[in-house]
Amino acid sequence: MAVGGRTDVFAGLRPEVPDALARHLHDVDLIDHHVHGAFTVGIDRAGFEAALNEGSTDPVPAFMSQFDSPLGLAVRRWCAPVLGLQPLASADEYWLRRAELRPADLSERFLRAAGVARWVVDTGFLGDRITTPEEMTSLSGVASSSILRLERLTEDLIEAGASPKDYPEALRAALDDAVADPHTVGVKTIAAYRTGFDVDWSRPADTAVVQSAARQGQRPARVDDPVLIAFGVHEATARGLPLQIHVGFGDRDLDLHRTDPLLLLPLLRAMAPVPVLLLHCYPFQRQAGYLAQAFDNVNFDVGLAINFLGPRSPSLVAEALETAPFAKQLYSSDAFGPPELHLLGSVLWRRAMGLVLGEWVRCGDCTEADAIRIVDMIGVRNAERVYGL
Amino acid sequence: MAVGGRTDVFAGLRPEVPDALARHLHDVDLIDHHVHGAFTVGIDRAGFEAALNEGSTDPVPAFMSQFDSPLGLAVRRWCAPVLGLQPLASADEYWLRRAELRPADLSERFLRAAGVARWVVDTGFLGDRITTPEEMTSLSGVASSSILRLERLTEDLIEAGASPKDYPEALRAALDDAVADPHTVGVKTIAAYRTGFDVDWSRPADTAVVQSAARQGQRPARVDDPVLIAFGVHEATARGLPLQIHVGFGDRDLDLHRTDPLLLLPLLRAMAPVPVLLLHCYPFQRQAGYLAQAFDNVNFDVGLAINFLGPRSPSLVAEALETAPFAKQLYSSDAFGPPELHLLGSVLWRRAMGLVLGEWVRCGDCTEADAIRIVDMIGVRNAERVYGL
Amino acid sequence: MAVGGRTDVFAGLRPEVPDALARHLHDVDLIDHHVHGAFTVGIDRAGFEAALNEGSTDPVPAFMSQFDSPLGLAVRRWCAPVLGLQPLASADEYWLRRAELRPADLSERFLRAAGVARWVVDTGFLGDRITTPEEMTSLSGVASSSILRLERLTEDLIEAGASPKDYPEALRAALDDAVADPHTVGVKTIAAYRTGFDVDWSRPADTAVVQSAARQGQRPARVDDPVLIAFGVHEATARGLPLQIHVGFGDRDLDLHRTDPLLLLPLLRAMAPVPVLLLHCYPFQRQAGYLAQAFDNVNFDVGLAINFLGPRSPSLVAEALETAPFAKQLYSSDAFGPPELHLLGSVLWRRAMGLVLGEWVRCGDCTEADAIRIVDMIGVRNAERVYGL
Repeated sequence: MAVGGRTDVFAGLRPEVPDALARHLHDVDLIDHHVHGAFTVGIDRAGFEAALNEGSTDPVPAFMSQFDSPLGLAVRRWCAPVLGLQPLASADEYWLRRAELRPADLSERFLRAAGVARWVVDTGFLGDRITTPEEMTSLSGVASSSILRLERLTEDLIEAGASPKDYPEALRAALDDAVADPHTVGVKTIAAYRTGFDVDWSRPADTAVVQSAARQGQRPARVDDPVLIAFGVHEATARGLPLQIHVGFGDRDLDLHRTDPLLLLPLLRAMAPVPVLLLHCYPFQRQAGYLAQAFDNVNFDVGLAINFLGPRSPSLVAEALETAPFAKQLYSSDAFGPPELHLLGSVLWRRAMGLVLGEWVRCGDCTEADAIRIVDMIGVRNAERVYGL
Repeated sequence: MAVGGRTDVFAGLRPEVPDALARHLHDVDLIDHHVHGAFTVGIDRAGFEAALNEGSTDPVPAFMSQFDSPLGLAVRRWCAPVLGLQPLASADEYWLRRAELRPADLSERFLRAAGVARWVVDTGFLGDRITTPEEMTSLSGVASSSILRLERLTEDLIEAGASPKDYPEALRAALDDAVADPHTVGVKTIAAYRTGFDVDWSRPADTAVVQSAARQGQRPARVDDPVLIAFGVHEATARGLPLQIHVGFGDRDLDLHRTDPLLLLPLLRAMAPVPVLLLHCYPFQRQAGYLAQAFDNVNFDVGLAINFLGPRSPSLVAEALETAPFAKQLYSSDAFGPPELHLLGSVLWRRAMGLVLGEWVRCGDCTEADAIRIVDMIGVRNAERVYGL
Repeated sequence: MAVGGRTDVFAGLRPEVPDALARHLHDVDLIDHHVHGAFTVGIDRAGFEAALNEGSTDPVPAFMSQFDSPLGLAVRRWCAPVLGLQPLASADEYWLRRAELRPADLSERFLRAAGVARWVVDTGFLGDRITTPEEMTSLSGVASSSILRLERLTEDLIEAGASPKDYPEALRAALDDAVADPHTVGVKTIAAYRTGFDVDWSRPADTAVVQSAARQGQRPARVDDPVLIAFGVHEATARGLPLQIHVGFGDRDLDLHRTDPLLLLPLLRAMAPVPVLLLHCYPFQRQAGYLAQAFDNVNFDVGLAINFLGPRSPSLVAEALETAPFAKQLYSSDAFGPPELHLLGSVLWRRAMGLVLGEWVRCGDCTEADAIRIVDMIGVRNAERVYGL
C-alpha cells in the first residue's frame, strides 16, 4: 500500500475473496469496541518486543526474539509497508526504520491506516504512558468513547479516602456520574485477573460490601475481593450500563482455566439483562459463542487473540462464527501500546472475514450480500446497538 | 433439487469430492441414531425462529432474527429448494412459503428428503407437540425404534404413585419391560441437565435409592437427584441396554462445563460394558473422540451441533475424525421440532464427510474405497452393531 | 520411496508446498526430543493392533480393527512402502509382509527412514521389551540421549531398600549422579498418571517427604504420592535438569481433564526457571502454546497426538503454531513399541509443517526463508538449546 492509505488486505488474494465482499471489507469503517491507548513515550527494541508478548511481563529472553512469533510475522508483513518498507522486511530493518519515527508519528500512521470509525477506549490501565481517548481522536481524526474500569474506579475511590461505611454510596454516585456522562458508554471488569470467575456472583448486601471495604483498607489498593467486584458489576448493570468482561487470554497473572466464560453462568443467570461483552475469549471462543446463543444479552469478540495468532487468525475467526447469531459478535483489536496493534487488529480481522466468508460464498453457503451484511453487523452495527452509539 | 427428490449435497462441488464417494454419500440411507419428533402443530414465525436457537428458551429478541445465524443460512440454502424456492431465498420468502404448508406436509417433504433408513427416536420430551415414532414412520415411509429416557421413566413412575419403598422394584420391572420390547433399543440419560457429570456415579444400594425417592416425594416430579439418576443408569446397563448420554451443547439450563464427557470417567470405569453413546458433545468433541478410543464400549456423535454450525460443520466433522476408531462414531441429527432439522442433519453430515474424506482421498491419505467404508461405518453399520438392529 | 531411503512426504503435493521448503523438510535431520524404544520382541497381529491404541490397554475388540482409525490409515499409507508394498496396501497385506520380518529388521528400516539425528529416550517404561538408547543408536546409526523418569527413580530407590528416613538423601544423590552423567539430559514426570495436576506443587520439606515415603512402604511400589512427586520435581529442577511433563493424551488410567497444563500454573510460578517441556498436550495444545508464551522457560510439543491423528495432524500442528513463540516448541514422536511410530512421527510432522507453512508462504504471511527457519527451530535448534546438546 501507499504510505498514508488504507492497507489492502487482499492484495494477491482476490481470487479467493469475491470482489464486492473484498471491496466492502476494504472500505468499511469499523467500530473498535475494545481498545486501549497507543504509547505516547518512546520505547527501545526490548520494550517493543516485550509489548509483542501478552502472556509474560518479563523481558524477552536473550535466546530468542519476539519477532519469531505469529504476531511478529504479522508486524513484518502488514506494518512494514506503513513505514515505507517492503512487506516482510527483516526484524532489524523494521526496527531501524521504526526507531526513526516519533511516537505521535507512528500512532498517526497506524491509527489512520486502521480504517476505524470510533474507538471505544478502556482507560483503566497505565494511563500515563498511553494516549487518552481525546488523543486517539486527535491522532486518528475519528471519534472515541470511554469504558470505565470498575476495579480501577473502586481503587480510585478508596485511594481518594472513601471510608468503608461510605464506599457503597460513593460507588453508586460515581456510577450515576458515568451514566450521565455521554462519553462513557459502558463499564468493564477484570475479575479474571483479580478473583477468577469461580466466585460467588450473587448481589451483595451493603453490609457485606462495607466489611469487604474495611478489609481492603486504605493501603495502595489492588482490589481482589469478590464481594467488591460483584458489587460493582451489579450496581453498574442495574443502571443499564453495558458490561465488558475480560475473558481468557491475558498475562500469566491470571489463572486461564478459571476464566472459562462458562464459569460466569451464575452471574449471567442472575444479573440485570443489560448487554454483556465477553472480550477476547481465546481459547474459549466456542464457549463464548455458545453463551451468545444462549443469552439474549450476551455478546463476544475474539480481539487480542486475532493479533497474537497472526497467520492463524482466520481459523479463530472461523471458530467464532460457529454457534453465535451474527447479531451477537463484535469487532475489537484490544490493542495496547504499539500502534501497530491498532492496525493489525483491523487488518487481520478484515482479512480473516474475507477468507472465511469468501469460502462460504464460493461454496454456496451464503450470498455475497449476506456476507457483506454479516461484516457490517459484526464490524459496526452490533456495537452501535449494544452501546447506543 | 426437484421437489420430492433427495437433496444433492455436492451440487457445484464435484471437483473437490471424488465421484464415487460423492455418489455414495448421495445414495446411502443413514440410521439417524438420535432424533426427536417433528412438530405436529402449526407454529408462527416467532416460534420457528425460537426453534432455531438451542441455547435459549426465550423468544428471539426484537433486535435480531435467528435467520442471521449459521443454522439460519443452512435453512435458507438447503431447505428452500425442498419447498420449491431457490437456494438462499430470503428469510421472508422462506417464511411465506413455509406458512402455506401444513405440519404434516412439511414433515413428509423434509423427512423423505433426508434419506434416512431408520429413526431411533428419543420419546422423552414434549411428546404431545411432536410426532411419535409411529408417525415418523408413517410420514417418512421408513422404520423407527425408540429410546427410553430414564429421568422421564422415573418421573412417570413417581407420578403414577410408586412409593419410595417400591420405587427400586418398579424401575426394575419397567426396565425388564423395555428389554422385552423389540421397539426399544436403548435408554438415555439427561444427567447433563439434572445434576451435571461431576457427581458420585457409583452404583447405589436400594436403601439409598429409597431415601432419595422419599426426598423426591410425589410432587410433580423433575428428578434431579444423582442417586436416582445413577440407579437408573446402572440398572439399565446391567440389563444390557445401550446407554445414550446427553453431552455438551444444549440449552442454558445446563452448566456446559459440567457436561465435559471426561467427567464421566468414574462411570465409564465402573459400569457394565454395554455400548455407551455420547451424544452431541460440542464443544467437547475431541474429548469424546478420546474416550471412544480409550473405552471399547464408548461411541459418540456430533449431532445437533452439525446443524447449528451450518457452514462450519465440516470443521466439526473433521475434529470428530481425530482420535476415535471409525467403528466408534455414529450419525445423528438430534432434530427436534421443525422437520427442516431432520433434513439438515443428514445433508450437512453428508456434505461434511464428502469434503473431509474427499480431501483425504485427494491427498493420498486413504483410498476412495476406504472413504466409502468409513461413511458406511459411521452412517449405518456402527448403529446396527450398537443397537443390534 | 525406495526401500531404505528417506520417505518423500510431499510426493504428489509439490504445488502446495514451495520447492525449497519441501526440499528442506525432506532433508533436515530432526531431534526427536521425546521417544521410547522400539519392540525387541516379536508381536502378533493382536499385539500390533493394540499398540495402535493409546487410550486403552485392552485387546482390540472383535467387532473392529485398529487399522480402521486415522493412525491405521497412516500406517498403511506411509509404512507400507518402507516394507516394499504400495502405499495404502490393505491391512491384511501389510500384516502379512510385516510378519515376515524380524523385530530388528523392522526397527532398522523404520528408524533409518525417519531421518532423525538424535533420539532423546525416556527409559522409564517397560524397558525389557523395547530397545535401549544404545540399541536405538545401533539400529539407526545416530546418537541418543536419555531422560530419567522421576517416578521410576523413586520406585527403584524404594525397591532397592532406601528407608523413609534415607529417601530424601538417596534421591538427591541419584539426581547428582544424573547431573554428572553426560548421557542424561533431563528428567520426566508422569504426575499426570499418578496424581493429576491439581495437587499441591509447593516444595515439600524433608520431614514431609520422609512421612510420605513411610506411607509408601517397601511394597512393590507405584508412587502416587503428590509429596514424593513434587519433591522429585523440585530437587531435579533445582539442579538445572530440564523437566519433561506428560500432559494430556495418554491411556485411560489418567483423568484427562486433570492433565490440563493450566493446572500446572502453581508449579510454573514457583519452580526453578529451568526448561520445562510439556509433552503431547492434546487436546490442550492451545493451552500449552499459551503457557509457552507466558513463561520464558516453558516449551511444548504435540508429539504422540500427531501420530494418532494421522490425516488430521496438519490441523493439530497448525493449532500448535498459534500463540507460542517459534523458539518454544519442539518436535517429538513419542513413539513406543512398533517402529512404524518412530517413522510416522517424523513423516507426519514434516508433512504437516509443509502444508501449514507452505500456506503461510503462499498467502504472503512469511517468506520461504522464514518458514525454513521455523522448521529448523522447532525440529532441531530449540532441542539443542533446551537440553544443551
